[in-house]
Amino acid sequence: MSVPKKLLNDPNACAAELLDGLILAYDGQCEKVGKASIVKKSIPDGKVALLVGGGSGHEPIYHGLVGTNLADGAACGDIFAAPSPDIVLDATKAVHRGNGVLFLYGNYAGDVMNFDMGAELAEDEDIEVRTVLIWDDVASAPPTKKEDRRGIAGLVPIVKIAGAASQVVESLDELERVAIKVRDNTRSVGCALAPGSIPATGKPTFDLADDMVGLGMGIHGERGVGEIPMCSADELTGKMLELIFADDLEFASGDEVILFVNSLGATTHMELLICNRKAREILAEKGIIVHQTIVGPLVGCQEMAGISFSLTKLDDELKKYWDMPCQSACYSKMEGRQS
Amino acid sequence: MSVPKKLLNDPNACAAELLDGLILAYDGQCEKVGKASIVKKSIPDGKVALLVGGGSGHEPIYHGLVGTNLADGAACGDIFAAPSPDIVLDATKAVHRGNGVLFLYGNYAGDVMNFDMGAELAEDEDIEVRTVLIWDDVASAPPTKKEDRRGIAGLVPIVKIAGAASQVVESLDELERVAIKVRDNTRSVGCALAPGSIPATGKPTFDLADDMVGLGMGIHGERGVGEIPMCSADELTGKMLELIFADDLEFASGDEVILFVNSLGATTHMELLICNRKAREILAEKGIIVHQTIVGPLVGCQEMAGISFSLTKLDDELKKYWDMPCQSACYSKMEGRQS
Repeated sequence: MSVPKKLLNDPNACAAELLDGLILAYDGQCEKVGKASIVKKSIPDGKVALLVGGGSGHEPIYHGLVGTNLADGAACGDIFAAPSPDIVLDATKAVHRGNGVLFLYGNYAGDVMNFDMGAELAEDEDIEVRTVLIWDDVASAPPTKKEDRRGIAGLVPIVKIAGAASQVVESLDELERVAIKVRDNTRSVGCALAPGSIPATGKPTFDLADDMVGLGMGIHGERGVGEIPMCSADELTGKMLELIFADDLEFASGDEVILFVNSLGATTHMELLICNRKAREILAEKGIIVHQTIVGPLVGCQEMAGISFSLTKLDDELKKYWDMPCQSACYSKMEGRQS
Repeated sequence: MSVPKKLLNDPNACAAELLDGLILAYDGQCEKVGKASIVKKSIPDGKVALLVGGGSGHEPIYHGLVGTNLADGAACGDIFAAPSPDIVLDATKAVHRGNGVLFLYGNYAGDVMNFDMGAELAEDEDIEVRTVLIWDDVASAPPTKKEDRRGIAGLVPIVKIAGAASQVVESLDELERVAIKVRDNTRSVGCALAPGSIPATGKPTFDLADDMVGLGMGIHGERGVGEIPMCSADELTGKMLELIFADDLEFASGDEVILFVNSLGATTHMELLICNRKAREILAEKGIIVHQTIVGPLVGCQEMAGISFSLTKLDDELKKYWDMPCQSACYSKMEGRQS
């Protein structure tokens, strides 16, 4: 495999340079704090703060989810690496407004270790921190072992809803409760068609035969439910959604959901729409109502080919938070559905 | 080159299937009309209508630009092919509310021929039509031959602003005037790093050596200003913006602009942000003020690698229309800048 042609300067400085570019893309809404944190400039006193973060290289997440009615800040790691505890501490201090900070991020061992150390350092400075881990990937462990599941694209609706809630709630307890509810109401499954590449070396992130699909494979090539022969868009969509419906969260007739069809990178918007067509047919057969759809490459791994589906089941409270407008580098929407 | 692995069903039915998937992704905001048009369900009587359109395969444009404060409808062609005159007529009749229809689309020979025929058919039914062609690509012809220039990514800010204006103006004359102004205030330049593929055959859309960049190359591989050796992100950003600044539209110190850094497909969000960093440095040196930035893969050609830069110079009127919120499958924003 040839090395992909990429627009880089110093291949070892990608994370720092993309962070500079991201902050500029925020047009004054956010600023860089410390070594590698991005923080909203305007956070009201007394607000319960929401902090996200994780490794770089998956843009527009995670750092792109800072914004209006979204996260207040992000702790940004190097490419595919967790942010260090001091970066987490910098971000925590910068978003804190006297009412506690909720950490909300994907369940990866390195992130958990470093965010936990950052939380301890913050508590030494009398900042109360709670953590809600995102573990939406049903293909990464059985439902009895949620704490072993990875966080994948479901983080977008989860952070969207928690971010809206963080504007309204009066306590860290309340925000933690809402974040746990939306996390527990979200299920995702991904697949891999072809690897991305590591920016510093150009090497592929994993190996996969040309005629196979990694069903449930993680965005760095982590083990899923197995490799299956390449098949049609409709067939793969059916197999993937079946994994979500076989999980422990019931999606019943009359339930309202957010449906997110995500590209891991090189998979085209055309393909996402073709898969969305089949997904909607399957959901309609089950009587599941799509309140709003997200389609796009928001949670990726460089030029990796593959998609993921995420479903978030709404109740009245979650729908109210979903319907609030938001603005960020990753995802923006107007109020409501505009139908 | 091996055939890219894609999530398709019938490779010859991609355009129809993606249109179905797109309409479903609009969650009730739009509906399919006739053979291949997409139209907003709610268009007020007496509104001056805005119609866009073009070939499929470039998603999320063109059909994704129908929405709130954006276009009222789109006439959708097959993959990389103009919509036929009857599709244009269907769309025109469906968006018309008694006050005329503005056609706003990219300047490609097939589109111009078919939209013009559609306009004639509409005029036979007493619908007044005006046409504004988008020709923002500075690399496709000299400034003295604007009518030979292609329409590329600049169509996003152009349709955004014309769509907002179409909510407010009282006559087709007025909408035509605003659309011409924003078109004439927009310049773009693209580059190609690697081809996309034709969905029906898997064949690459053009040939380009592994160590070369097609500077100014069009999204289907059309001739640009020439091939140059592959270089760094900063160097290429400089060369590309220089082509815009060398053109006939002056960007002076104190001017406010919309900056759009677009991926043609497989080029990652990380690379766009690294290029944005350099672009902002160059704009700052010239004293040009970025009012708002768009970064993302919005105008593409399958899994083609490459980027484009677009600059739209604002005056008070265009800024007012830019600042209005919008919602669509392609681009959404809240009101103002949210800084």
